[in-house]
Amino acid sequence: MARPTPLSGFPEWLPEGRLVEQHVLDVLRRTFELHGFAGIETRAVEPLEQLLRKGETSKEVYVLSRLQEDPDSAPDATDRAGRLGLHFDLTVPFARYVLENAGHLAFPFRRYQIQKVWRGERPQDGRFREFVQADIDVVGAGDLPYHYEVELPLVMAEALGALREIGVPPVRILVNNRKVAEGFYRGLGLTDVDAVLRGIDKLDKIGPDAVAALLVDEAGATQAQAAACLELAAISGDDESIVDRVRELAERHGATHELLDTGLTELGALVRAAAERAPGVVVADLKIARGLDYYTGSVYETVLVGHEQLGSICSGGRYDTLASDGTTTYPGVGLSIGVSRLVSRLVGGGLVRATRSVPSAVLVAVTQEEDRSRSDAVAVALRARGIPVEVAPSAAKFGKQIRHADRRGIPYVWFLGQTDDDGVVAGDQVKDIRSGEQVPADATTWRPPAEDRWPRVVPAEG
Amino acid sequence: MARPTPLSGFPEWLPEGRLVEQHVLDVLRRTFELHGFAGIETRAVEPLEQLLRKGETSKEVYVLSRLQEDPDSAPDATDRAGRLGLHFDLTVPFARYVLENAGHLAFPFRRYQIQKVWRGERPQDGRFREFVQADIDVVGAGDLPYHYEVELPLVMAEALGALREIGVPPVRILVNNRKVAEGFYRGLGLTDVDAVLRGIDKLDKIGPDAVAALLVDEAGATQAQAAACLELAAISGDDESIVDRVRELAERHGATHELLDTGLTELGALVRAAAERAPGVVVADLKIARGLDYYTGSVYETVLVGHEQLGSICSGGRYDTLASDGTTTYPGVGLSIGVSRLVSRLVGGGLVRATRSVPSAVLVAVTQEEDRSRSDAVAVALRARGIPVEVAPSAAKFGKQIRHADRRGIPYVWFLGQTDDDGVVAGDQVKDIRSGEQVPADATTWRPPAEDRWPRVVPAEG
Repeated sequence: MARPTPLSGFPEWLPEGRLVEQHVLDVLRRTFELHGFAGIETRAVEPLEQLLRKGETSKEVYVLSRLQEDPDSAPDATDRAGRLGLHFDLTVPFARYVLENAGHLAFPFRRYQIQKVWRGERPQDGRFREFVQADIDVVGAGDLPYHYEVELPLVMAEALGALREIGVPPVRILVNNRKVAEGFYRGLGLTDVDAVLRGIDKLDKIGPDAVAALLVDEAGATQAQAAACLELAAISGDDESIVDRVRELAERHGATHELLDTGLTELGALVRAAAERAPGVVVADLKIARGLDYYTGSVYETVLVGHEQLGSICSGGRYDTLASDGTTTYPGVGLSIGVSRLVSRLVGGGLVRATRSVPSAVLVAVTQEEDRSRSDAVAVALRARGIPVEVAPSAAKFGKQIRHADRRGIPYVWFLGQTDDDGVVAGDQVKDIRSGEQVPADATTWRPPAEDRWPRVVPAEG
Repeated sequence: MARPTPLSGFPEWLPEGRLVEQHVLDVLRRTFELHGFAGIETRAVEPLEQLLRKGETSKEVYVLSRLQEDPDSAPDATDRAGRLGLHFDLTVPFARYVLENAGHLAFPFRRYQIQKVWRGERPQDGRFREFVQADIDVVGAGDLPYHYEVELPLVMAEALGALREIGVPPVRILVNNRKVAEGFYRGLGLTDVDAVLRGIDKLDKIGPDAVAALLVDEAGATQAQAAACLELAAISGDDESIVDRVRELAERHGATHELLDTGLTELGALVRAAAERAPGVVVADLKIARGLDYYTGSVYETVLVGHEQLGSICSGGRYDTLASDGTTTYPGVGLSIGVSRLVSRLVGGGLVRATRSVPSAVLVAVTQEEDRSRSDAVAVALRARGIPVEVAPSAAKFGKQIRHADRRGIPYVWFLGQTDDDGVVAGDQVKDIRSGEQVPADATTWRPPAEDRWPRVVPAEG
């Protein structure tokens, strides 16, 4: 066959890029587990009617059919019953998993889930059709205290912060609260809250004047109400003073509402805890409107500082009804990291690199094919002590074997001891092919310096 | 919504089962990396015409369509051009990846790949529609020495052997060699080698008499030739004597062929190396015929001892042409572990268990909601030293908080120090809720015994 070309929207990495992705996933997993989140995976498919409960995502779903499906038994294309689609996020499958397994789970249930998701949209501006998400959620049975809305973004701040050492830029987690926005709008006398949110969501794109006009046209606002909404959206900050600023603004406009009070208490608690545990990372930003139509409390977005145009790499919020079986309601709060978007920037933007593209720290040279088993024995001895090793592909000239190691970034080449023509026995030697230094070595005791043992993922300039 | 029910053929695990699967994957990954295999992932989809190059698998492919696909631009169902399907193994995508990235890879290229695959077949007798495979392959550019056919099953023997400590039964890797079979048949004068192999493949199902009849009817064999083929198929053993037995049989039937000599040299080398490095694990079994129609050299199947009816959990072989771009041919050898089949038996058969279902070793109790930040601070201090911790969901009575830990299998509950009514300050205490023992503890120095730190995966009877 001819050389295949990549499929747009379906990213794949060379081994070095995969090392970066794997490292990111390992760090996330470790942080999530340190915080007591249990790992689960769900199947890649869900019944189509389950995936389409949020109407707006219908265009994104990949539907499956079996190639040899019996045409007589195949459902009509317009009949969704029984058809399967690929999940487009990990929240819908998780909600289904919770309902399906509720009797076997202890609530509040803390889980992390790292899997691929698929969206059938046209690939553009860094959007993928297949990508990895890393989610954490806490879900309660019946109720879920607010403190989880404080805890979860701080877990993500820690997880993303742990990536700083490999060269990931600092992150800023922007938070808002549906209750603050809705309470403020209702206090002003505006009732079409979703229309106001839709307008505010366009602020960065179309600017305040156009948004004010939208609020008047589509949300039934007066000029004064629209101006008040824009004033609210202009408030941001990383300490509790933002609560006072919102209160002062609400008083000035005569906007009072119980929901606003609840929301401000919540947002204040989040900002206070964040200032203590992750100073400078969490910023209340009252113009965040995306997601406020379906989240019911806190909402989170996360930008890489200096790469804001990449969009949010970690978003989420609180749902009062993540799932319900008619008897019990399961509220949840969670965030989802767009791992592929992040890794794509780290690798594609040259921010991060792996110190080599293969696991092996050592290539054991082969003197002659008949002696391969001696080289194998050295490899076995080194691996027994946790050192990654491969044996040379052939008994080529040593120069060629060294070049083979060099091309793959393997730092050490091991040479077997030899008996020379005079019967003098020389022991094994190991060569650091970067420095050229070659020293006697014993496979049962030698080890490479810790920094050479496994490939490391490091800042690209390091 | 009503409580959902599982989809047949799409296995999912509760958190405890996922811990078992994750442990298996971690052990495999570590072994593969110690042997210098680089990890890659490929996209879940391939162009349909690529997936259908092996005609016999066409019925298994899940084809994708976008739900809102423009009907005018949608390809006709009979038109395969441009359509995408989910991969049904990791070999086809790997072959494509090698061709696509050949300029960036160093050959021989060693890779492992652990991913889900999908097959649209009706689920039955332990067959899944979605399952995890763990593959290792070595692929060369132009040529690939035979010694890799010796090395790769030994890597799998080591990987599966490393699972013995969690209660995985011992494995037996059965090997055969296309060249031995083909050379023997041709030496006998039989030319329809694939027909002979198809007959021999039915030996376990229909018995030797029926196979002999098949060989006569469908492979054009005489009764004597059929009998010789059955004699060959009856040879098995884990030492080099099998080579002599085949030679003796071939001489007795006057079967000589260059391919037979080459194959016996290869098979002998494999059995000899295996007897040294993994005694008792690798068995030459000359009745293994499955896969010999497309493999060109060694072929491998692996059974769990005592669970042979489960079928092969790790299969593979050598392809002289894993991929080809018309200029360069890429031969490969590899094996694939059916991880879901294995884990399903381990969990479903009660062979293996996790010591708890959540990562947390410690639940930090909350005395009163206003003091939650004190509990959070203890959790931060413990996590800083690598101890997985969660904080109690609410400031319920301590008995209820202990029951919460107990239900989740968390072994330790941490209580904050208190100042009593007389102003006497008591320090923090930690309780092992299994023994009831409660001792003073300092969050900056206390640590649980190593065996309690993380959930462990252990034999179920242990």
